[in-house]
Amino acid sequence: MTQSPAVPTPERPFLGEARVKTVGGLADEVRALIDAVVFTDAPDADLEEAAAALRALTERLNAARLPAPPMSADHGMLGQLGNPVTGVVNPVAPPIPFEVQEDGSVTADFTLGDVYEGPPGYVHGGISAAVFDQLLGMVAASSGTPGMTATLDLRYRRPTPLNTPLRLEARVARREGRKTWVEGTITTPDGRTTVESTAMFITPRHFITSGLAQDPASR
Amino acid sequence: MTQSPAVPTPERPFLGEARVKTVGGLADEVRALIDAVVFTDAPDADLEEAAAALRALTERLNAARLPAPPMSADHGMLGQLGNPVTGVVNPVAPPIPFEVQEDGSVTADFTLGDVYEGPPGYVHGGISAAVFDQLLGMVAASSGTPGMTATLDLRYRRPTPLNTPLRLEARVARREGRKTWVEGTITTPDGRTTVESTAMFITPRHFITSGLAQDPASR
Repeated sequence: MTQSPAVPTPERPFLGEARVKTVGGLADEVRALIDAVVFTDAPDADLEEAAAALRALTERLNAARLPAPPMSADHGMLGQLGNPVTGVVNPVAPPIPFEVQEDGSVTADFTLGDVYEGPPGYVHGGISAAVFDQLLGMVAASSGTPGMTATLDLRYRRPTPLNTPLRLEARVARREGRKTWVEGTITTPDGRTTVESTAMFITPRHFITSGLAQDPASR
Repeated sequence: MTQSPAVPTPERPFLGEARVKTVGGLADEVRALIDAVVFTDAPDADLEEAAAALRALTERLNAARLPAPPMSADHGMLGQLGNPVTGVVNPVAPPIPFEVQEDGSVTADFTLGDVYEGPPGYVHGGISAAVFDQLLGMVAASSGTPGMTATLDLRYRRPTPLNTPLRLEARVARREGRKTWVEGTITTPDGRTTVESTAMFITPRHFITSGLAQDPASR
């Protein structure tokens, strides 16, 4: 979830609000296109023409490229705009909107469409897992103990419906030294929990020495 | 992973090999476009024109829509072409190619690009989780005991690099009545395991009575 220090990575470019809106709007059109590709029953000739048109559009967008996926200027480490779960400029992401509460807990209200299908009519279990990994990591980060995912455990209690408002709630369960356990649930509008998850995050030592994370000794 | 019987779902349309190639080719162009959107530094005006062009293409593809995401005529229950992990016609999917061995174990050789990034330079932990959920489920299915994911547990031992050849290997660990435990690893070219996973799948009773799955009593 959070930055791994061992790896040299290019500088992250930051986008302002207006630019995020423009690129995010383009990403939304790609999301609609993705759905259309999965379901299309248009003739082969139309598809081949569409492919050629896309190739030209891609070339035009690639005429100027950022050195790395962009970050939001406003949201710090939670602002990975290219994140495959929450990133508004990444068409792979639904994207999942989330709210960080004052105590560091996170809630998210979202709906997943047909391109995230696993069993017919239901959300792919791996997509639920990806949503948990991302949002549980955000809880760890926003509550002062950012870290790398060490374990992620999921219990699927019943199928999670597609195209239905879902709510994720997640909070810190406990801490022990540099380890933080975060737990969360996904529930349907009738209040039933479909999936439960617990993840354990380990805060790198230098996050503490550099002041990025709480010092466990000070708790 | 596999079909949940409780839910009424529309008939699944089947696509032949040539059509899969055409739609898959279009999906590949969308994959290239997704990467371009995440990285683009083109002027706002170009992005707005691109968005308008995409809207028109989407409309054209939607002029004729299938009633549900398509299946491959050749691969039965493993042939969900719209699957968000393995589906060749779903641009959200990398897609992960996989090989089913005679004993039902599964191997997959794949590379994940920048749009699947979590920590800078590394694969998002949730994407690894999604890959495991899908391929461990395929092991359960292809070894005679298809089922729904009941639990999925992941241990992240080190970061998984982007843009690097990865190998997933997975096999049945044990069975107990209608429960099947499947375990797998993702390794890098130097033979290091980055993530380990175990999942437990439960075979619905009527899969057994209808002959879709082995009868545990006959083992």
